[in-house]
Amino acid sequence: MKIKMNENFKAFKDNYLFVECAKRIADFQAANPDAKVIKLSIGDVTRPLPKVAIDALNVAVEEQAHAETFRGYAPESGYDFTRQAVADYYTRRGAKIEASEVFISDGAKSDCGNVLDILGNNKVYVPDPVYPVYVDTNIMKGNEIAYLPGTLENGFAPMPTDEIEEGSVIYICSPNNPTGSVYNREQLTEWVNFANERGCLIIFDSAYEAFVSGDNPRSIFEIEGARTCAVEICSLSKTAGFTGTRCGWMILAHELEAAGMNLNATWSRRQSTRFNGVPYIIQRAAAAALSEDGIKVCMENIEYYKSNAKKLSEFLTSKGYKFTGGTNSPYIWMQTKDNMPSWGFFDLLLNEAQIAGTPGVGFGSQGEGFFRITSFGKAEDYDEAIRRLERIL
Amino acid sequence: MKIKMNENFKAFKDNYLFVECAKRIADFQAANPDAKVIKLSIGDVTRPLPKVAIDALNVAVEEQAHAETFRGYAPESGYDFTRQAVADYYTRRGAKIEASEVFISDGAKSDCGNVLDILGNNKVYVPDPVYPVYVDTNIMKGNEIAYLPGTLENGFAPMPTDEIEEGSVIYICSPNNPTGSVYNREQLTEWVNFANERGCLIIFDSAYEAFVSGDNPRSIFEIEGARTCAVEICSLSKTAGFTGTRCGWMILAHELEAAGMNLNATWSRRQSTRFNGVPYIIQRAAAAALSEDGIKVCMENIEYYKSNAKKLSEFLTSKGYKFTGGTNSPYIWMQTKDNMPSWGFFDLLLNEAQIAGTPGVGFGSQGEGFFRITSFGKAEDYDEAIRRLERIL
Repeated sequence: MKIKMNENFKAFKDNYLFVECAKRIADFQAANPDAKVIKLSIGDVTRPLPKVAIDALNVAVEEQAHAETFRGYAPESGYDFTRQAVADYYTRRGAKIEASEVFISDGAKSDCGNVLDILGNNKVYVPDPVYPVYVDTNIMKGNEIAYLPGTLENGFAPMPTDEIEEGSVIYICSPNNPTGSVYNREQLTEWVNFANERGCLIIFDSAYEAFVSGDNPRSIFEIEGARTCAVEICSLSKTAGFTGTRCGWMILAHELEAAGMNLNATWSRRQSTRFNGVPYIIQRAAAAALSEDGIKVCMENIEYYKSNAKKLSEFLTSKGYKFTGGTNSPYIWMQTKDNMPSWGFFDLLLNEAQIAGTPGVGFGSQGEGFFRITSFGKAEDYDEAIRRLERIL
Repeated sequence: MKIKMNENFKAFKDNYLFVECAKRIADFQAANPDAKVIKLSIGDVTRPLPKVAIDALNVAVEEQAHAETFRGYAPESGYDFTRQAVADYYTRRGAKIEASEVFISDGAKSDCGNVLDILGNNKVYVPDPVYPVYVDTNIMKGNEIAYLPGTLENGFAPMPTDEIEEGSVIYICSPNNPTGSVYNREQLTEWVNFANERGCLIIFDSAYEAFVSGDNPRSIFEIEGARTCAVEICSLSKTAGFTGTRCGWMILAHELEAAGMNLNATWSRRQSTRFNGVPYIIQRAAAAALSEDGIKVCMENIEYYKSNAKKLSEFLTSKGYKFTGGTNSPYIWMQTKDNMPSWGFFDLLLNEAQIAGTPGVGFGSQGEGFFRITSFGKAEDYDEAIRRLERIL
């Protein structure tokens, strides 16, 4: 064909991180069919859906079986009951949000890419290391990307600098994937003030907020001033085990304006044109999970994962390894053995301990020499993983 | 904020068609709380999900309730069982497609917009009248849009002309929404040959294929040569009543190349970066509906809608009104009374007969003086609608 393509795709050099990990694991498994690989690589949950979500699904499926209760097209931005359930979830935690500021989606990954559809070609600042989707979606759009380096020294929580240009877009992921670092109230206030002064937009990804403990903010809307400089993307993937069930949301306050355009209204137009809503049955499950009682049930699974993280943290501490995360996050971000390259450490763990983690360098150049292990596995796997690691670390 | 926005959104002058219809209906209903409005406007189904899909949902929900059978992240492009079910569905109808050429999505509307993410800024040709999403998504991308006029004379099935530029993108919707016109085998072959000669890409929307009768093609891949010039977008919304359940697909043959890029591989990269797959439970329902037995059950609902269309067609014929559709399509596309403007006819029907349809002009300037009525309502509503129309037409 003679059509023009989006040639920004040609800038991609490597496979998508998790695809490459999956390939190496599959190759190893093919060569060693009897090996029992413990997969602590992809940030995927393993606990079943909470009963409150299952019950809601069963009721909703039955509704879809009868003409009297059948539901067709959902409102593109979500049913009122779902949008209100999200707003209530935030309000209970002290971040006042209206239902009309909540846009229900099929997940944070979609929203991360789709939000760029309503923006122009801005310079973007992305933490390094971080979830690769921020970088890849901006490459696809041809945006100029600069990095905010995370280091052991700044606790992988980079702060504003004078080099950040006016009117740019800044990604913040807190708790951070992969490092597990979390911004405290003072740090996040500094970011919000900075963004308001410089006319920047913060894209705040709070997908791991359910793991936050203590007084650390779980939403940027807990911070004064966020309504004029930030959108927030979140999902039930981790909070309620929805990785394979798909429901998330983006929050755009009514005050948010740029280039004479209202972002809430523009996003609404984008969604009503390019999206047909989240399935009715899924929205019922989401609303049930987000209710006050629902969240209590969800937190049982979060505590399960946290106890895995604790086990692993204690082991690494006993071995003298440096790491972040493990308390406000399902992730443990550790230095590799003898400062090995990340992919070398990946291969070592896979070949010698049949443990699959994720190479830190896959999340950015600052991740070289680090390694991500998730706590989303089964409890018994961590006992076995520690036994195997004991021989190597 | 000082960030740059996508100012293409400023080109939108009016509300999205269906939003405006919904608003007028809501206003009327508020002013006339006792009026029973028969809604034959939005193309939404009313029959419940087929039993085969409900059964699959129930089994899958139960799987998600237990750690042993729980499924997390789905493959972004769909589970193999879903991709294979789609491929088999096509193969049974004589269009040979491989599972690796099928990309499972949350619906045709999403795919219609998202496919533009992998393309450059091409000139696009859009039938007029047609589903407004093609035009709106191209406005958002800032593409130059030209129209292929549908008229009573060409049966609302415009054919290639020499004015169409080399290397452009051409939308074909067959059966057409809103006109119900369907391309026959010879016409579609002419389009495919034309696209191959001129290096054009055809985006073929077959969302209404289940309504096609006789020898008319239901997929562009039934036509020799389509694999080097076309992508096809389809969904279960109409075929299996999935408007509120959300599952569709796009087909990109491995041969499809432009600007040194393979479209199948590029789309795969786009989906793995910006999408996290369709919910597991929905994919199970989709695969069940697409099976040989499943489709038989689905066709009972299609026949139900077709008998509504037949009833209405016979009435309009008896009144001497000109219309297309109603046989290969759930839509009837009729001339307005005395060639009234479309919105005037909309208001007339709403106010005088409490019937809501869709103004033809909302689908393009060629739709002025026409009106779309859907057959997706309840059978008894059509008897009542005809009694009311009897007083007006």
